[in-house]
Amino acid sequence: MSTELDTPQIPKQKTGLDRALAQRLVDDYLRLLVLDDAEGIGALYHPEARLEDPVGSTPLVGREAIVGFYSNGLSGIDAAELSGPIRVAGNEVAFAFNLHMKIKGQSFAMDIIDVFVIEAEQIVSMRAFWSRENMRAV
Amino acid sequence: MSTELDTPQIPKQKTGLDRALAQRLVDDYLRLLVLDDAEGIGALYHPEARLEDPVGSTPLVGREAIVGFYSNGLSGIDAAELSGPIRVAGNEVAFAFNLHMKIKGQSFAMDIIDVFVIEAEQIVSMRAFWSRENMRAV
Repeated sequence: MSTELDTPQIPKQKTGLDRALAQRLVDDYLRLLVLDDAEGIGALYHPEARLEDPVGSTPLVGREAIVGFYSNGLSGIDAAELSGPIRVAGNEVAFAFNLHMKIKGQSFAMDIIDVFVIEAEQIVSMRAFWSRENMRAV
Repeated sequence: MSTELDTPQIPKQKTGLDRALAQRLVDDYLRLLVLDDAEGIGALYHPEARLEDPVGSTPLVGREAIVGFYSNGLSGIDAAELSGPIRVAGNEVAFAFNLHMKIKGQSFAMDIIDVFVIEAEQIVSMRAFWSRENMRAV
């Protein structure tokens, strides 16, 4: 079958980011969230990376602050699963996923979209899109 | 049921963007894509807005260029549907959706994540995350 994608609707992208690398980083990230492994997540980030979670909050800069963020925030995550394919574009990857977590004994599901900017196989920027309306008791 | 969301994991966000407004803009955008209404989509954008579709391509600036982009790119879109809830954060909204389109008689499905930055009820920035790997013949 000819797919004939060379149309004006489908520009040729110069994607610097390897899709397999992006998939691996995303998969590792979600796996380490469930493992409550803040140091492991920190190792996915560049030492001077920037984290904004949620978007609109004051960004954290640097691996120490980032590890601190995950050290405080990870407990209680039971599952973290992609809810669709990753989207790689430029040197970035966007992905929709959901978390299942327990907070004070109550189970919640949470829908999030994260955007990673990747350079030299490390996350140099992470922005997490979610608000309370994306949480529901389950 | 008490949901008790006032925990360290769930920071209080200062969300300047009204969720209902964001939902309306997203719904209008997807509806107008299917209607092939480039002018209508242009009206959702600020006159000096910036569009980067796909992320990594040269951004277009200004409503005229944006209308031109949609005038060239919209034909053949049969359906545009959210594949999950919108995520509102800060003055931005991220949403995962899929398009069904025909290109040279072949039907494709395409998975995209868009991020809108909203100011004064208009899109001031749009970034679309996708690559060819997010297209499949259907």
